[in-house]
Amino acid sequence: MRTIWMNQLSWVDYEATIKAEQPPIFLPVGALEQHGPHLPLGTDGLLSAAVAADTATLVQGLVAPTLSYGYKSQPKCGGGQHFCGTTSVDAATLIGSVRDAVREFGRHGATKLVFVNGHYENQWFLIEGIDLGLRDLGPGAKLQVMRLEYWDFLTEQTLTSVFPNGFPGFALEHAAVIETSMMLHYHPSLVRTDLIPEDPPADFPPYDVYPTKKNWVPLSGVLSSAKGSTAEKGKTMATELAMRMADAVIEAFK
Amino acid sequence: MRTIWMNQLSWVDYEATIKAEQPPIFLPVGALEQHGPHLPLGTDGLLSAAVAADTATLVQGLVAPTLSYGYKSQPKCGGGQHFCGTTSVDAATLIGSVRDAVREFGRHGATKLVFVNGHYENQWFLIEGIDLGLRDLGPGAKLQVMRLEYWDFLTEQTLTSVFPNGFPGFALEHAAVIETSMMLHYHPSLVRTDLIPEDPPADFPPYDVYPTKKNWVPLSGVLSSAKGSTAEKGKTMATELAMRMADAVIEAFK
Amino acid sequence: MRTIWMNQLSWVDYEATIKAEQPPIFLPVGALEQHGPHLPLGTDGLLSAAVAADTATLVQGLVAPTLSYGYKSQPKCGGGQHFCGTTSVDAATLIGSVRDAVREFGRHGATKLVFVNGHYENQWFLIEGIDLGLRDLGPGAKLQVMRLEYWDFLTEQTLTSVFPNGFPGFALEHAAVIETSMMLHYHPSLVRTDLIPEDPPADFPPYDVYPTKKNWVPLSGVLSSAKGSTAEKGKTMATELAMRMADAVIEAFK
Amino acid sequence: MRTIWMNQLSWVDYEATIKAEQPPIFLPVGALEQHGPHLPLGTDGLLSAAVAADTATLVQGLVAPTLSYGYKSQPKCGGGQHFCGTTSVDAATLIGSVRDAVREFGRHGATKLVFVNGHYENQWFLIEGIDLGLRDLGPGAKLQVMRLEYWDFLTEQTLTSVFPNGFPGFALEHAAVIETSMMLHYHPSLVRTDLIPEDPPADFPPYDVYPTKKNWVPLSGVLSSAKGSTAEKGKTMATELAMRMADAVIEAFK
Amino acid sequence: MRTIWMNQLSWVDYEATIKAEQPPIFLPVGALEQHGPHLPLGTDGLLSAAVAADTATLVQGLVAPTLSYGYKSQPKCGGGQHFCGTTSVDAATLIGSVRDAVREFGRHGATKLVFVNGHYENQWFLIEGIDLGLRDLGPGAKLQVMRLEYWDFLTEQTLTSVFPNGFPGFALEHAAVIETSMMLHYHPSLVRTDLIPEDPPADFPPYDVYPTKKNWVPLSGVLSSAKGSTAEKGKTMATELAMRMADAVIEAFK
Amino acid sequence: MRTIWMNQLSWVDYEATIKAEQPPIFLPVGALEQHGPHLPLGTDGLLSAAVAADTATLVQGLVAPTLSYGYKSQPKCGGGQHFCGTTSVDAATLIGSVRDAVREFGRHGATKLVFVNGHYENQWFLIEGIDLGLRDLGPGAKLQVMRLEYWDFLTEQTLTSVFPNGFPGFALEHAAVIETSMMLHYHPSLVRTDLIPEDPPADFPPYDVYPTKKNWVPLSGVLSSAKGSTAEKGKTMATELAMRMADAVIEAFK
Repeated sequence: MRTIWMNQLSWVDYEATIKAEQPPIFLPVGALEQHGPHLPLGTDGLLSAAVAADTATLVQGLVAPTLSYGYKSQPKCGGGQHFCGTTSVDAATLIGSVRDAVREFGRHGATKLVFVNGHYENQWFLIEGIDLGLRDLGPGAKLQVMRLEYWDFLTEQTLTSVFPNGFPGFALEHAAVIETSMMLHYHPSLVRTDLIPEDPPADFPPYDVYPTKKNWVPLSGVLSSAKGSTAEKGKTMATELAMRMADAVIEAFK
Repeated sequence: MRTIWMNQLSWVDYEATIKAEQPPIFLPVGALEQHGPHLPLGTDGLLSAAVAADTATLVQGLVAPTLSYGYKSQPKCGGGQHFCGTTSVDAATLIGSVRDAVREFGRHGATKLVFVNGHYENQWFLIEGIDLGLRDLGPGAKLQVMRLEYWDFLTEQTLTSVFPNGFPGFALEHAAVIETSMMLHYHPSLVRTDLIPEDPPADFPPYDVYPTKKNWVPLSGVLSSAKGSTAEKGKTMATELAMRMADAVIEAFK
Repeated sequence: MRTIWMNQLSWVDYEATIKAEQPPIFLPVGALEQHGPHLPLGTDGLLSAAVAADTATLVQGLVAPTLSYGYKSQPKCGGGQHFCGTTSVDAATLIGSVRDAVREFGRHGATKLVFVNGHYENQWFLIEGIDLGLRDLGPGAKLQVMRLEYWDFLTEQTLTSVFPNGFPGFALEHAAVIETSMMLHYHPSLVRTDLIPEDPPADFPPYDVYPTKKNWVPLSGVLSSAKGSTAEKGKTMATELAMRMADAVIEAFK
Repeated sequence: MRTIWMNQLSWVDYEATIKAEQPPIFLPVGALEQHGPHLPLGTDGLLSAAVAADTATLVQGLVAPTLSYGYKSQPKCGGGQHFCGTTSVDAATLIGSVRDAVREFGRHGATKLVFVNGHYENQWFLIEGIDLGLRDLGPGAKLQVMRLEYWDFLTEQTLTSVFPNGFPGFALEHAAVIETSMMLHYHPSLVRTDLIPEDPPADFPPYDVYPTKKNWVPLSGVLSSAKGSTAEKGKTMATELAMRMADAVIEAFK
Repeated sequence: MRTIWMNQLSWVDYEATIKAEQPPIFLPVGALEQHGPHLPLGTDGLLSAAVAADTATLVQGLVAPTLSYGYKSQPKCGGGQHFCGTTSVDAATLIGSVRDAVREFGRHGATKLVFVNGHYENQWFLIEGIDLGLRDLGPGAKLQVMRLEYWDFLTEQTLTSVFPNGFPGFALEHAAVIETSMMLHYHPSLVRTDLIPEDPPADFPPYDVYPTKKNWVPLSGVLSSAKGSTAEKGKTMATELAMRMADAVIEAFK
Repeated sequence: MRTIWMNQLSWVDYEATIKAEQPPIFLPVGALEQHGPHLPLGTDGLLSAAVAADTATLVQGLVAPTLSYGYKSQPKCGGGQHFCGTTSVDAATLIGSVRDAVREFGRHGATKLVFVNGHYENQWFLIEGIDLGLRDLGPGAKLQVMRLEYWDFLTEQTLTSVFPNGFPGFALEHAAVIETSMMLHYHPSLVRTDLIPEDPPADFPPYDVYPTKKNWVPLSGVLSSAKGSTAEKGKTMATELAMRMADAVIEAFK
């Protein structure tokens, strides 16, 4: 059985696959961004690639190399750019990376491309990149593009089981229970559960101020507690995500 | 001992490392590009990351996530953009990715950044990205940036031993003995030695024509034969590269 | 008493105001976008300007001319770009407009600039424009910038009273009860309540597909019903927004 | 009778109008720029919109929302960027705004678009934006675009009557008799005739120097006196402009 | 005596000149644009360079290499882009060329840079390029930049003698008496006086339409007749231009 | 016989030539860059134009105006940007200049365009500009583009005769024997043989560091000695280049 990782295929095998199967191609998009003292900087890229891989396995897809650098971290969803280690790109760069990918996969003759986003701040620049890439390909292009943020595929039922005391909302889910549990499932050796902070959830006003008011953000960079994270919860979520994303891919490209 | 992979470090550990050690940070730059029927599309990124990692180990450095998409493949050094699977970016995108990285590592307080290039076509866009990133940082910046193409660190002596019948020059070394041997050393499971083509070396005139004249390029995409590649040769080269690059890093940032 | 509208002030009066009062300057950002058969294309700009004006009145601020063209409409929050009349700008254009404004108000010596966003799709391009504008001004700049989406200042209590049967969430609030009620309050002559569609709320999957699947979007362009909209509800919301935004402005620039 | 203001139309009515009438669509372009102590900062946008509206009324056209921020003010025609309150955009931003508008109205199926420029400095960036927008639409596009500076439609006869002592030329007509008279006609409440400066006309050498030599420009920002401005002159000019522009629109799109 | 041509100086001599004399540096900007059947495509670059050289000689200045490609030709001042041979650049390219030049001469330590424009369409893109270049150099820069269109230095007296039947205005002076006479003075072998067309002057309405209405423009590309051109008139004008431009340069940089 | 210089042709003659002959059009690309104390700053543009002209004469081609400003000088091939007099452009500017030229010559109906590069640093930006220009023209374009660095057409035999003590490689051939000899052939009055430095060849490590380490580069800017340069060698090389480039042009566009 062939690998799902596009960068491990020869071009000969890739071309044969495209021609014979028209597999959906998953392109994970992450970030290099602080995720508290207990998770690694690469969390968003690692998780989007892992989820993409599990989904690709279910639908005989391929996974292209991850875009590892994401859009600038914002205080309310990622802590902000003032953290050391967060390494981000300007909008134009991310838009360009996505636009070029759309144009190139279109040239290959691929018809199904899925951007799997693992960093909230990337979303709108992916939208613009996809739009410009499709504009470049022109009205007759056969490529269809899907874009998703993987966490949107979690059911309410699962969120209830993961957060027995109530789900605080995705807004504060940065380096918190969802990401930590999924990292415990996929990359347990990279999680330092002993360092999970005890901070109360961050409380933001309904506006933003620039330059960033650093005192709005917990010093740890964690927006709500990761206490209660377990590998089992991670597995539950990962399984659900892969299955539901697989269904969505089949549905979308039908 | 801490990991060399930046994306596996928490921001807390990364910041502590930056402050205490000022480690050189290696940023590998590859490509997703045809490498014949026997090597995978991701060869350039895999090799630049591997070489960067070995070097980082010797100098207590860190390795940032690879830029996996490179500049457009050219017939004479990579076969050209007409191969299915080659997935490239425009100049502006690669320049932007590099510029942003320079600016961000400068903001971290890092002082030593090394772009390890594994795809010939990238070179001049790295140069521009570095220049613009340093312009953004301004004249007082403390960050110094190094850029290298890893193969330039091979000694003549080693090239002689790797090519007992004479080194054909780097120009045609695409998916040929150097890359194949190094892949056999680093990623043997991704090499299909049984599929190495027998094509004679490509012969190019001293000019280029656009759109690409496809009949200039062997159908396999291999510019000179990879016959004679061995893991042992790969190991010899990899060892030399890491040692000489480590020396260079120490020298350059002295 | 001087006008709040910056474009009605002479430069002499503007300069005197900046020097004497350092008023917060509100810059409304809208869109020219379909809002169903009952609301005008300019709804987002009209409402963001109206809300900005009411707030400015409370804090002795100024209102700069509205950016009337917004980022491309998306199916899930604005119906999509396939509607005739929707007239949008590329990301680079909106980012540039915002960046230039930040740089110019910084040059004036203004210290408080507030982008009042009335079109959901604009948010992230405002963020990038503000970031680049502040980068242009450099680290010593005295200008602080605030960005808000006005609807985020509605309290749960108000939402409960506006939606006695339960608030369907902001996601579907396009040309629906909030916008229609506020237009009935601010611009009643521009609302055709007789044309409010009866469509059930749109139901979107947790992903996007490009090119847009037009059959996901109601033909009317209304994502959830505007039935139940009243000028009184509009007034209640408008009053709350102005008061709470005024408080926020005072707090943020303290 | 329907409104001429596009932003007050629903998309349904707009689409019906486009299909049934193919109305010329007027897009006013102004500036936020010092206009002396007696005229408001928004003069250029207010006048271009007013003239566009009067013309649209004569030809059953529509008026799209004004681009309120113009290209950087130059000493010889607008006083220069050193005045507080002048709020301008870079060339790339204005070009982008125009390019996007051309592309979008083309997508609507509109065939007649008229940029009504009220700020001298905008002209060449409108030209570039229109050219790039038409390039985007491609050679088969049905959209024709007209661009005009409204003052070019004044006849010599009218200029003679407005300037009984001789017309000093458009070059110095910044915040002077033409603009002041037209503002007295269209927006009398925004004109402070008591503050019209007595400065003699500015006298510029036949070259420019950068950075701006501020002492070339009268402190008031007025390049030649507005004394002698009357609402009646404004009405005469406004009437002539609308009639002649209407004729031109009919002629151009015939 | 050293050459005035910068590209003929060694860097050593150039540096010595900059340090010792701070000469004004003239940078001619032309176009490759149709100039009727009797003048060559390179007229604008040839004339701007010639005028710059004569001026440089008077003030011990230097002349940098000409920018030979100008902004897109417009029907009313250059005939339009539909003529074969006209070879133009986009706004962004010309702006970039100028911006880079400003930044580079600033880096050299030069303090006086003069853009000598010979193509009407270039003017506003020179303005933007200069503004952005000075922005790059920052507020402390010592470089002053002058920009001029050379024909603006002709006195009324001279125009009267050159046009005994009355000066038709600069607007139609494309490939007409001024340019033809000056080419007869500077480059007589490149002028085909036998081919000067007899067309009456072009008559344009006070607006522009895009795509270009080709029937507005004489087939020859000449906007008003070049009959009456003589080398003597050219000499008179060239002499006046150099003298008056020299005075202006001395005055401006005093 | 008509001139080879495009800028000396009228548009009428140019158009006739294009239609009747489809001549190859040569576009020289140079630089304004230090070339030691003995060669002028404009060497690269002068030589690329001279070689292009000789080749054009052999194949009845045309030579378009030189792009006189090149990409930023690098220490290892041009000495670096720290030399006074070196006046370079950013990548985006050079790419734009080339892209626009490709698009314009395509519009003319030309089918053969040859970029003759005389500055090593330009190469990859020419590649990108050509690629983007052809993308603009679209898949049906009839224009073919050739790009060459002229020195690549020197045979080994010639290099052996020019360098009796062995050819040090093109890498250090900056302001050295090849360029100096060719300048002695083409522009003897611009060469100061008395000032040729005696410096030993520069010795660079196999990597680059930014900001430039100035002490890597000889103070003179000459990377290997120009001693032994003669006009005769220049003539030999110039003759060979023109003949071989002419053959290549015929072959490439066959």
